[in-house]
Amino acid sequence: MTEPVDSVDSDAGLLAPGWTGSPASAATGNGAFLQALLDAEAALTRAQAGLGLAPAEAASAVSVAADAVGFDVRSIALRARAGGNPVIPMVADLTAAVGAEHGPYVHRGATSQDIMDTAMMLVARAALDLILADLERTARALGRLAAAHRDTVMPGRTLTQHAVPTTFGLKAAGWRSLVLDARDRLTTVRLPAQLGGAAGTLAAFNAFGTEDTQALVTAYARELGLAEPALPWHTLRTPIADLAGALAFTAGALGKPAADVLTLARTEIAEVTEGAGGGSSAMPHKANPVAATLIAASARRAPGLAATLYASMAAEDERPAGAWHAEWEPLRELLRLVGGAAGHAAELAEGLWVNADTMREHLGLTQGLIVSERLAAELAPVLGRARAKELVTRAAKLAVAENRPLVDVLGEEQELTDLDLADLTDPTRYTGSAGALTDRALERR
Amino acid sequence: MTEPVDSVDSDAGLLAPGWTGSPASAATGNGAFLQALLDAEAALTRAQAGLGLAPAEAASAVSVAADAVGFDVRSIALRARAGGNPVIPMVADLTAAVGAEHGPYVHRGATSQDIMDTAMMLVARAALDLILADLERTARALGRLAAAHRDTVMPGRTLTQHAVPTTFGLKAAGWRSLVLDARDRLTTVRLPAQLGGAAGTLAAFNAFGTEDTQALVTAYARELGLAEPALPWHTLRTPIADLAGALAFTAGALGKPAADVLTLARTEIAEVTEGAGGGSSAMPHKANPVAATLIAASARRAPGLAATLYASMAAEDERPAGAWHAEWEPLRELLRLVGGAAGHAAELAEGLWVNADTMREHLGLTQGLIVSERLAAELAPVLGRARAKELVTRAAKLAVAENRPLVDVLGEEQELTDLDLADLTDPTRYTGSAGALTDRALERR
Amino acid sequence: MTEPVDSVDSDAGLLAPGWTGSPASAATGNGAFLQALLDAEAALTRAQAGLGLAPAEAASAVSVAADAVGFDVRSIALRARAGGNPVIPMVADLTAAVGAEHGPYVHRGATSQDIMDTAMMLVARAALDLILADLERTARALGRLAAAHRDTVMPGRTLTQHAVPTTFGLKAAGWRSLVLDARDRLTTVRLPAQLGGAAGTLAAFNAFGTEDTQALVTAYARELGLAEPALPWHTLRTPIADLAGALAFTAGALGKPAADVLTLARTEIAEVTEGAGGGSSAMPHKANPVAATLIAASARRAPGLAATLYASMAAEDERPAGAWHAEWEPLRELLRLVGGAAGHAAELAEGLWVNADTMREHLGLTQGLIVSERLAAELAPVLGRARAKELVTRAAKLAVAENRPLVDVLGEEQELTDLDLADLTDPTRYTGSAGALTDRALERR
Amino acid sequence: MTEPVDSVDSDAGLLAPGWTGSPASAATGNGAFLQALLDAEAALTRAQAGLGLAPAEAASAVSVAADAVGFDVRSIALRARAGGNPVIPMVADLTAAVGAEHGPYVHRGATSQDIMDTAMMLVARAALDLILADLERTARALGRLAAAHRDTVMPGRTLTQHAVPTTFGLKAAGWRSLVLDARDRLTTVRLPAQLGGAAGTLAAFNAFGTEDTQALVTAYARELGLAEPALPWHTLRTPIADLAGALAFTAGALGKPAADVLTLARTEIAEVTEGAGGGSSAMPHKANPVAATLIAASARRAPGLAATLYASMAAEDERPAGAWHAEWEPLRELLRLVGGAAGHAAELAEGLWVNADTMREHLGLTQGLIVSERLAAELAPVLGRARAKELVTRAAKLAVAENRPLVDVLGEEQELTDLDLADLTDPTRYTGSAGALTDRALERR
Repeated sequence: MTEPVDSVDSDAGLLAPGWTGSPASAATGNGAFLQALLDAEAALTRAQAGLGLAPAEAASAVSVAADAVGFDVRSIALRARAGGNPVIPMVADLTAAVGAEHGPYVHRGATSQDIMDTAMMLVARAALDLILADLERTARALGRLAAAHRDTVMPGRTLTQHAVPTTFGLKAAGWRSLVLDARDRLTTVRLPAQLGGAAGTLAAFNAFGTEDTQALVTAYARELGLAEPALPWHTLRTPIADLAGALAFTAGALGKPAADVLTLARTEIAEVTEGAGGGSSAMPHKANPVAATLIAASARRAPGLAATLYASMAAEDERPAGAWHAEWEPLRELLRLVGGAAGHAAELAEGLWVNADTMREHLGLTQGLIVSERLAAELAPVLGRARAKELVTRAAKLAVAENRPLVDVLGEEQELTDLDLADLTDPTRYTGSAGALTDRALERR
Repeated sequence: MTEPVDSVDSDAGLLAPGWTGSPASAATGNGAFLQALLDAEAALTRAQAGLGLAPAEAASAVSVAADAVGFDVRSIALRARAGGNPVIPMVADLTAAVGAEHGPYVHRGATSQDIMDTAMMLVARAALDLILADLERTARALGRLAAAHRDTVMPGRTLTQHAVPTTFGLKAAGWRSLVLDARDRLTTVRLPAQLGGAAGTLAAFNAFGTEDTQALVTAYARELGLAEPALPWHTLRTPIADLAGALAFTAGALGKPAADVLTLARTEIAEVTEGAGGGSSAMPHKANPVAATLIAASARRAPGLAATLYASMAAEDERPAGAWHAEWEPLRELLRLVGGAAGHAAELAEGLWVNADTMREHLGLTQGLIVSERLAAELAPVLGRARAKELVTRAAKLAVAENRPLVDVLGEEQELTDLDLADLTDPTRYTGSAGALTDRALERR
Repeated sequence: MTEPVDSVDSDAGLLAPGWTGSPASAATGNGAFLQALLDAEAALTRAQAGLGLAPAEAASAVSVAADAVGFDVRSIALRARAGGNPVIPMVADLTAAVGAEHGPYVHRGATSQDIMDTAMMLVARAALDLILADLERTARALGRLAAAHRDTVMPGRTLTQHAVPTTFGLKAAGWRSLVLDARDRLTTVRLPAQLGGAAGTLAAFNAFGTEDTQALVTAYARELGLAEPALPWHTLRTPIADLAGALAFTAGALGKPAADVLTLARTEIAEVTEGAGGGSSAMPHKANPVAATLIAASARRAPGLAATLYASMAAEDERPAGAWHAEWEPLRELLRLVGGAAGHAAELAEGLWVNADTMREHLGLTQGLIVSERLAAELAPVLGRARAKELVTRAAKLAVAENRPLVDVLGEEQELTDLDLADLTDPTRYTGSAGALTDRALERR
Repeated sequence: MTEPVDSVDSDAGLLAPGWTGSPASAATGNGAFLQALLDAEAALTRAQAGLGLAPAEAASAVSVAADAVGFDVRSIALRARAGGNPVIPMVADLTAAVGAEHGPYVHRGATSQDIMDTAMMLVARAALDLILADLERTARALGRLAAAHRDTVMPGRTLTQHAVPTTFGLKAAGWRSLVLDARDRLTTVRLPAQLGGAAGTLAAFNAFGTEDTQALVTAYARELGLAEPALPWHTLRTPIADLAGALAFTAGALGKPAADVLTLARTEIAEVTEGAGGGSSAMPHKANPVAATLIAASARRAPGLAATLYASMAAEDERPAGAWHAEWEPLRELLRLVGGAAGHAAELAEGLWVNADTMREHLGLTQGLIVSERLAAELAPVLGRARAKELVTRAAKLAVAENRPLVDVLGEEQELTDLDLADLTDPTRYTGSAGALTDRALERR
């Protein structure tokens, strides 16, 4: 026990530029998790003391030890193999640390899973707070982008091809709406304390003298600032599944703007640039969209991790052999992946350079065909639908074949001389409700 | 044996006893999906007519054709390959069916994805209604089981081993709480109509004369009874991801009781029996827990399907090339898998035989060690904690080694003669708060 | 429009343009699967007859019925719910069809899983044959592309940015190598018949008079043209897992060229075009990369399906409750997804238009910075490494800032007057070993 | 740079009793990975020196620094965020360590991915060696179990119910065959070095003076003891996908015996016991099947990790933005999960206690119905098939209803007086080919 808990430098994360060094990484690391285990134990003893079931001195002793003693996370991790979880050796060390008098009040009546699950909720809460703060930052920056570019026209792209014009404002507003959806889902996940004893009946607490186990559960949850569980949830894994879903959602919600940035930052497109592109070891001139890349990588990984957690819901008996054990690392990984991604998303949104001129130039890449939908619609009342369609189709072919603007080709048509073709074929005049949709989306708080 | 093999009918589901023949299967089949596509088109024309943007006669004609004409789902499916989705050939057939006069008002201003996404929401709504009804049935049956067996004591099992006693009532109440959690999550999924036009700006509707596209979206959603979208969600896939999460949750929630039934129905355990066990092709005497088996299979498959849907959130551009196309079958499969599982769960819950005598007998399988936790706790104040633990441990070893009840072994201890050992070692007296927890859980509606 | 919606035909695949109508779809449909079940039964009776354990007439009768009688797949599917698999009702129908005399020799000694697993292998074999043929077509077409474009220079792109030049030949040769890797993996999957009886001991065959069960297994496998199993593999799922892995591999191998085509076909890039692009319901001018889109969608879905199959390896007992049942649909779906993707890949490869001029033009998009790596390397021996790096970095900045070719900027440097800068900065002269690698890769057969 | 690489105590693994402290954990940790990165760099410089492209002194200097200097893994990990991978800061530190003279020969011509991918192969090789050794240990122990229990009869169980007898020998032989299948798949995975330069053309090596890049690739691979790649595989991810498949297979192959042990170790079944069961924090008497639990947890997690890796095959361009970055942690996690599971499997197999008496007792649990299949078969020639089936079915019902052995019920039947009913109903006489199958399976090496 040579190191304090808070300086345990594990989780070096050499393979994880997506989350290494992020606040979420620290909040979910081995040190933080060990502290959460200790906090859960201390809260349990304090809750018992508050109900007269343990001496106040024991509660103090456990609390002090949990806070101040540097337990050896590596040693506990290694000894966890024997029983299959780290609570057993942690309890041994904590019991030893508080001494013979107070030792009996450590972990009294609890089962390992009570402490592990509670610690997981504590760690999740800390990580969610960080994630939510970064989502708010991201949403604010995206809101600014959307407002600033409300009328910045760019090609709308579908199945990789220019379709009709859109605006960067609408795109950014859409990104923001996803981020807010993620925020709303994370905010509503309920994080309950876990307390059930060996098989979820709370029986040991009765044996130790508690008349009212519900009062104990209430006090325990209150000590930790966690929600009170309706039932022990050793094999009713709603909190884990809800976290899985909300975190996979968030990874996907951030993955959408990342996918767009990766497309729009391509050398040929160059409509956006990451504020702080990453260097290359081989080519000094390259400015890689590193943040978008790392967010995209997170979005690729989160669904598989969430799937493992959903699959663990089908857990047999009062406490299962494997389903529970399969949850710990994927849930922690989801928390730090999403935590890292949220931080990168905030940086990305705050630093994104939008090249409005390039967007406008690209509207001309299809020789005006990007407004062919409009032409077909607007000419139909004038020429009849069939004739309008025929004329537009022919003109479009000609424009492409001869590499001429559609407006010029159409200008040669006698039937159209009375029309304001320049206006009708101006992509910046064909953005539909993009502005109104952006405005409305930005009203959401 | 009336049909040749090669003319078999739709979604025959030969490999899917988990959902074949269920209401959810019919509600999500190719026929139902085609109808939903047609309904979306009809609603769009009606919505336009309601705003004066199309003749009322066109709206009637499209609605009649959508309802009455028998379109060829196979032909549409085959022609869907060219453009990558079935809307294009469906629109061609519907346009032909309504004739030259009204044809121009079919699909006017819409993009394929508007119709596909809307149809998916219609199909999802129909399936969710069925699923929710079966979850209610399941919850009611489980509530009855929990109440009836509030005090039916059975071994609590952890990591496959007897731990301490619990009750079947608490177990069933826990199953019910998961089912209600699933219900709550499915109920809150918002199913919006989709309408955005080619790139989500609703621009074509302007070109066709709509001043107020929002009014059109409102009318369209109202025609369909779907929620109104805040933004076109072609690449803001919140509704799909929410469905994925809620359905994976439900599969897991039903997978928990299935896992327990599979365990408790084992030949050696036989504490529960499926009301209608399935036969075997080789052994006429076997009564297999078929419903639990099929539910368990669904729970194994749902997470991977949900993962694919979460991964599709990271969709590039205004409409993506692949991410969207990867959603259709997994979402449909999730709906019918969960639909089938919910039906089987209702049957399982309603028909489950609970063998309370066997449960009680099994409490004795460990020679009384199932209450060793209690003994250690209760003897501590009498003997001191260390002595109590030592004595219980020694007695437990002896009981196992000599195959004698723990109560008999303890009866030989001088120190314990004043205690009511029969009571202290009675497993049915060590159920803790199981009854109170059950009562409280059953209050939830 | 001849059929009403509710009588649509089998596996219509309305949501599956990725595989509907493909040969693999027909080979894996409900009709084909039912036929495979019947073929397995017929082979079993014939194998028993061959060893004198059943009358030759019975074998003939079963074989004739299996081939000629039209069984009702929908009815069988519906009745499969009771026992949890379709073999039980299929055996009932087949037994009835062959009549009272020969009926006893139908399914004699087998368990449902013997027949299901064998049928799955038969269906897999048929689908693999089709897939392999399409992979060969794809590889041939890619080989032609690689040879034709051995020296077609294009930008090499990394993290979405131009890096250094490469050739389209090398890219196509790489695609081909992946396709050949997929072929090799699919070719080596072993597809054994399944025969074990109720619990994998073959005991019933002894009871029915077989002395040498191994001879029976051999004869059965030979009748079907399947490999002979070393052990009954009811819960030793090597064949299923190997199929899962090889099919997920193939989906990914085809997903790589699809991802590249989707990028290179972008409006701004337009270096390749699908020969037969798909139309759009809203924009007549669009030529969407539909084949690549559908292949990409398959690649997104296959890993999740394979994961479910890998997870089913952990199957308890002699035959499991759920793990096996979870295999059927994912394996079939993998076969037809990959079958559809292979067909689309062959079309894509055979029809791809390569726009070499556009590729060459794009080499200039970075003002020559695409060869900065070369310059730094080649100038180092002349100027010293530090000076070379400094000079190249400064020139690169200037070229970008002033929008001038790097060669012009460098031409102003006194130190470089003796160098052939035009050659040194010519991207088409900096393709390294691309040609040699292409040649070598094409030697593989 | 205060710590030597080999004492970096990261990866404390508090949440990972499944692999913490295992040899595979050490072989795949951050320290080992950093060393592999350094080894790859040193090999590259040596290979260049061997071809006269770099001074021998530079090669020595880099090799010495790679071996002896303690680089700061945490610092490198943190600085990896800027460029998105750890190679860039590692190269900076290594270059600084070798000094100005030799610095230019560090990483010369390579791209980050060359080094990362090569390091991944080195780490994979080390981990595979450890895994293979543990699989061999496991297979040997299972072979001994199978031989020792060749004739230990136990209930064969299907869909959780007793079906017909089998032997523990056949079960253990089946487990062993899966382990050998896993070994064979892991053994055949090809682990190539990676060398392609910025975009896979090896062009920089030409620029630095290499005429024959193939010779360089050969030398580099030889230095590392890795296979020589046919092509640079930056986006041809066959080695990664093959590892994913083989590791997911192995996790599943070990998951099968774990699932069986978890079932057979249940309190009510108790046919096997883990040699070293794990303790419980709440119940001192419990001996949990901890090894099987941790192996089962690994089998639950591996498929999702493999799915992420398969999905990364569809990587765009010459080097992708996200697909590659998503591989590192899942592949490492798979290696250490499977490494931990293989170690636990070896311990489990070597220490498993088989309770043959309990197995035999359980054969009687169904009152003899476990041999009803045999009776129906053997009585058919005597009584006629219909009569035999009727009689067995009736007797079975009676046996269950009256809780009497089937042999007694049948003894009352006049028609059967001539038969040796005791023999016919003896479960130990109805093991079919279990012995022969076991013998044959054990011949495999």
